[in-house]
Amino acid sequence: MASNVAAERPLRPAKRVSGQRQDVWSIVNEAAAASPVQPIVNMGQGFFGYNPPPFVIDAAREALDKVECNQYSPTRGRPRLKKALADAYSPFFGKKLDPDTEITITTGANEGMLSAFMGFIEEGDEVIVFEPFFDQYLSNIEMPGGKVVYVPLHPPPNGAFETSSASEWKVDMKELERAITPQTRMIVINTPHNPIGKVFSRDELLAIGDLCVKHNIIILSDEVYDRLYYVPFTRIATLSPEIARLTLTVGSAGKNFYATGWRVGWLIGPEHLITYVSAAHTRICYSSVSPLQEAAAVGFEKAEEMGFWDESKKDMLSKMKRFNEVWDELGLPYSEPEGGYFVLVNLKKVRLPDDYDFPPHVVERPRDFKLSWFLIKEVGVAAIPPTEFYTPENAHIAENYLRFAVCKNDDVLETAKERLRGLKKYIADD
Amino acid sequence: MASNVAAERPLRPAKRVSGQRQDVWSIVNEAAAASPVQPIVNMGQGFFGYNPPPFVIDAAREALDKVECNQYSPTRGRPRLKKALADAYSPFFGKKLDPDTEITITTGANEGMLSAFMGFIEEGDEVIVFEPFFDQYLSNIEMPGGKVVYVPLHPPPNGAFETSSASEWKVDMKELERAITPQTRMIVINTPHNPIGKVFSRDELLAIGDLCVKHNIIILSDEVYDRLYYVPFTRIATLSPEIARLTLTVGSAGKNFYATGWRVGWLIGPEHLITYVSAAHTRICYSSVSPLQEAAAVGFEKAEEMGFWDESKKDMLSKMKRFNEVWDELGLPYSEPEGGYFVLVNLKKVRLPDDYDFPPHVVERPRDFKLSWFLIKEVGVAAIPPTEFYTPENAHIAENYLRFAVCKNDDVLETAKERLRGLKKYIADD
Repeated sequence: MASNVAAERPLRPAKRVSGQRQDVWSIVNEAAAASPVQPIVNMGQGFFGYNPPPFVIDAAREALDKVECNQYSPTRGRPRLKKALADAYSPFFGKKLDPDTEITITTGANEGMLSAFMGFIEEGDEVIVFEPFFDQYLSNIEMPGGKVVYVPLHPPPNGAFETSSASEWKVDMKELERAITPQTRMIVINTPHNPIGKVFSRDELLAIGDLCVKHNIIILSDEVYDRLYYVPFTRIATLSPEIARLTLTVGSAGKNFYATGWRVGWLIGPEHLITYVSAAHTRICYSSVSPLQEAAAVGFEKAEEMGFWDESKKDMLSKMKRFNEVWDELGLPYSEPEGGYFVLVNLKKVRLPDDYDFPPHVVERPRDFKLSWFLIKEVGVAAIPPTEFYTPENAHIAENYLRFAVCKNDDVLETAKERLRGLKKYIADD
Repeated sequence: MASNVAAERPLRPAKRVSGQRQDVWSIVNEAAAASPVQPIVNMGQGFFGYNPPPFVIDAAREALDKVECNQYSPTRGRPRLKKALADAYSPFFGKKLDPDTEITITTGANEGMLSAFMGFIEEGDEVIVFEPFFDQYLSNIEMPGGKVVYVPLHPPPNGAFETSSASEWKVDMKELERAITPQTRMIVINTPHNPIGKVFSRDELLAIGDLCVKHNIIILSDEVYDRLYYVPFTRIATLSPEIARLTLTVGSAGKNFYATGWRVGWLIGPEHLITYVSAAHTRICYSSVSPLQEAAAVGFEKAEEMGFWDESKKDMLSKMKRFNEVWDELGLPYSEPEGGYFVLVNLKKVRLPDDYDFPPHVVERPRDFKLSWFLIKEVGVAAIPPTEFYTPENAHIAENYLRFAVCKNDDVLETAKERLRGLKKYIADD
């Protein structure tokens, strides 16, 4: 077709980047910057409001002094980090992990997941993703030509009226099996789950894993919040050798050590999978940031003995409880998180004034975008509208929810609570 | 086709990563590690043998103390770095660069180039690349479905017998124009050039740029060695508004500040191009390493007044001259670099013993791989065989050359020279 000839469309972007609907992060951040309440309390994006622990920062400083730590890392990652991860994760995986063949370092978990898709997805292959999903999954699957197939997590039936455990968001296993076709190549699991806060149970993971074994589906298990669980946490890779053979587990130093800007992630899995993740990573980023890999290595070497993991979990759970008090006060129900640092709150009871002046790019989106806008402008607290993490067909499931990130200093959380009490006058208890 | 059904090939990698010929870097690095001469002098990969300057390392340390510098950077990069680059590069571009629309930060120049291809290349589009090429270009072009079209740089006719300027490697403009088809979407230029050391002249760039304007071809100008030129350096983007409209210029903090492991790069170009590079980058890496972006920002704010750029250039030229003395002594000709830190040496005169025991993966490759292996094992100096940067058809052009990186401490260069003098007994002057 003549219209596809490159010379006739010199400056036209490729289709994969031409969809330019404004993303939720920029809508929320721009609204936050323009709010009359300043400084805004930004509980939108999941960045930490405090620094990594001193032993990790110190390690980064020391790495900067070493010539080799400022130069190219090997493409699969610095040997010290791969060894530290093998040592730290072998007990969880119930086997001795080989740092050279079963672990590969990536430029954050995000590029790690892209590398997995690039390693295995061909044009037309299908990847199953649960809704709600982390939005980057979609472009990462579509970039190598994959097709996303959605399976919803069903919310607690009474979620608008009572607080219940995040475990009440359920997979319908029959629905999941019906989504599998001969083109299904991979499935993405996320536990602890963003934004729900659900930690998938052993039974759920076993049911999913057995389906994958039956249908030969590669499991990409996004476990970046793996140190923040408040109920027993199971790794799907540990459930059977047949499941392990199909499983890639994704981790993140940014999430583990409060440093989302460090871009150090990894995948753990069998050599026959890791080899190709690593090959894709090499073609995407060549290698990952060297001094911060070294710092992450020291982090893993020391964290256990310093009691950091226990402290980290205890701190985050305490922040979660502290913040959620305000919802109990207001009588607004939420999904009580089993892990991670996000809480989904149901604001169905909040009445938005009929004549409220929402801008056009908010008016056209579901009610949660209006709730988010309203909270930013009237209350001074920013949160993420979760329908962004749904297909249009299923967006109604989340249209009354907002996602709040509690990985902020306690005084910030208290300010947020004080401001959110201002919602009282908009709440109708009928 | 049944054979393409995903379920029947669960663990088979995607075609884009399944080519597993051992790459040159691992061949050279493994040979170097196994050499009887230890420690080997590794002049193979272009990493620096010394640390970034103290004012940049200090800035990295300071960034680690700031909470926001350890968290997600905006996807287009930290505002301070974009501003520092706009300030530093506006004079070179002869116009005021807009930091928000004309600059985007990437995870090293490598992922920056991938982002450019992902932003504009659709299945079947063609990209012209000069031979020899930087090997990552190829996978970066092929990942979005592009086809690489090769145009050789022609070596100096007498390169085996006499040293001449790297400028003697020439583009045949008629050959270049013949390579253009209706599918040609982009061209990659690299100046100062790796591995040749050529700085493309103003006339050459103008001829290339005018061809691109005539045929509406996007120019991706890889200028990562832009602070290391020993003859006048021209940026193609500055030659005319018509060329500027089509040009993306790639830069690298890793190359500029001796920190190849930092993974901070950028693209500069008109908004109608940068928008989509940035969109692709967001989908690939989300954002880039935050504290080292901040350090690079301080680097650009201070480098000029500290005299760093002049010193950097003077130092590298002095290393180049110091090292190349040994080739003059041995009577081995080389291409005298006009920029960058690589030198291509012609070792046609070196006689490899007929009965020398090369391993199978070296035997099957062109003569430069044997030269590289021989130097590692017998002399203890590692260099890169440049036929890796050629298609098989044109590999003969480079089969007598080796590429040496001189970005090493002077004592290392002296050790290398002393060892290379051991080649004398293998050199036949006939």
